[in-house]
Amino acid sequence: MTISVLTIMPELFGSFLQAPVIARAIRNGVLEVKIIDIREYAPGSFRHIDDSPFGGGAGMVMRCQPVLDALRACNNKDRTVILSPAGKPYTQKKAHELSSAGHLVLICGHYEGMDARIYPHADEQISIGDYVLTGGEIAAQVIIDSIARLLPGSLRDESTQEESFENGLLEYPQYTQPAVYEGEAVPDVLRSGDHEKIRKWRLQQSLLLTRRMRPDLFEAHVLTEEEKALLAEADDSSFSI
Amino acid sequence: MTISVLTIMPELFGSFLQAPVIARAIRNGVLEVKIIDIREYAPGSFRHIDDSPFGGGAGMVMRCQPVLDALRACNNKDRTVILSPAGKPYTQKKAHELSSAGHLVLICGHYEGMDARIYPHADEQISIGDYVLTGGEIAAQVIIDSIARLLPGSLRDESTQEESFENGLLEYPQYTQPAVYEGEAVPDVLRSGDHEKIRKWRLQQSLLLTRRMRPDLFEAHVLTEEEKALLAEADDSSFSI
Repeated sequence: MTISVLTIMPELFGSFLQAPVIARAIRNGVLEVKIIDIREYAPGSFRHIDDSPFGGGAGMVMRCQPVLDALRACNNKDRTVILSPAGKPYTQKKAHELSSAGHLVLICGHYEGMDARIYPHADEQISIGDYVLTGGEIAAQVIIDSIARLLPGSLRDESTQEESFENGLLEYPQYTQPAVYEGEAVPDVLRSGDHEKIRKWRLQQSLLLTRRMRPDLFEAHVLTEEEKALLAEADDSSFSI
Repeated sequence: MTISVLTIMPELFGSFLQAPVIARAIRNGVLEVKIIDIREYAPGSFRHIDDSPFGGGAGMVMRCQPVLDALRACNNKDRTVILSPAGKPYTQKKAHELSSAGHLVLICGHYEGMDARIYPHADEQISIGDYVLTGGEIAAQVIIDSIARLLPGSLRDESTQEESFENGLLEYPQYTQPAVYEGEAVPDVLRSGDHEKIRKWRLQQSLLLTRRMRPDLFEAHVLTEEEKALLAEADDSSFSI
């Protein structure tokens, strides 16, 4: 998979591309990331990429020409996404969907705005959340990271199946050594060696945690008969955290 | 304001701290960011920061001791947040709230999990969205960026008031030079010089865009009389994009 990122701040990707999961995916040949400087498509010695908004107002607006020329220079793209606070909220489902693209292009918007005539050239707009960022660069990193770890050969093990959101629930609590830390003990069940009991306990914890922290996700989750039974037998003392 | 970040991957913050808005806030003395390597609090030459999960399963779990010792070494903290997919969804409102902390500590979780006994030591858990990231490092950058730009002296102008989410609506479309680009013209109203007409048009566009792209935000927004009138007079041709 190739991901091309169109940005006016290519230097913001330096450390990110060295991150273990990204670097491993690149090294294993399952991912290629191209950071494209929009400024290189702006003519003249001033590399004029933005201008004042029509109708007045604070800030500068990114011009059509450099962005669209940079976009046209991306060959064989099969999906173009603009990162913008006005986009559809990004989800794990969308990460799976985008991870099947051969060549994904991400256009990083900027907080002061982008000429509206650029938007129809993209397939969609995505927002990573209901907050305002300086630019789309961190949002692009969120998208790349979430996709990269779904590609075979990027994680050290195939542990994504039990993670939060993959089954519509939050992940169960994890514990590691020591068994007692500052008086706080690991739940007995996890040291019982009884795999079926451990599986049930973890599922129950996932359900309880999701219901408490994310009632919206819990509402959207269709309970199995087993899950209904696990919830019915839980009480306040069932919470491990 | 001071933000301390506890992480096992301090190198991921290199480029980020050079980003214009962050660098300006630091230079102007309104923000200090401390990147703290959790590994430095792990004793022994192996700097042992994680271990296998009790009860079995894939991956490694971050140990209590290095994280909690690093946390205890942060002096005068008044807010501690763990970045985790199981946290409450982050919003612009929360960005405003956190920006008033004197010393905010962000603990970056990792995808393979963190010992559950660490959570009670934080004031809250925050998630930046319903997707899975390799670690909390990018999430911490989202939080820092969204907060930094709310601090006085970080942006070049005070243009945050009209942005998406600040009034519960998405931002109106922006246009800049040239007036006609590849046959697509800027809406006439923006070149009219009539400031009141421009204000109304922009508000109408915000409402239409929010209703189309984010029905959930639109539902939650309480319409003023003026907004009701602007929506009533809009039709399909009112959309500028």
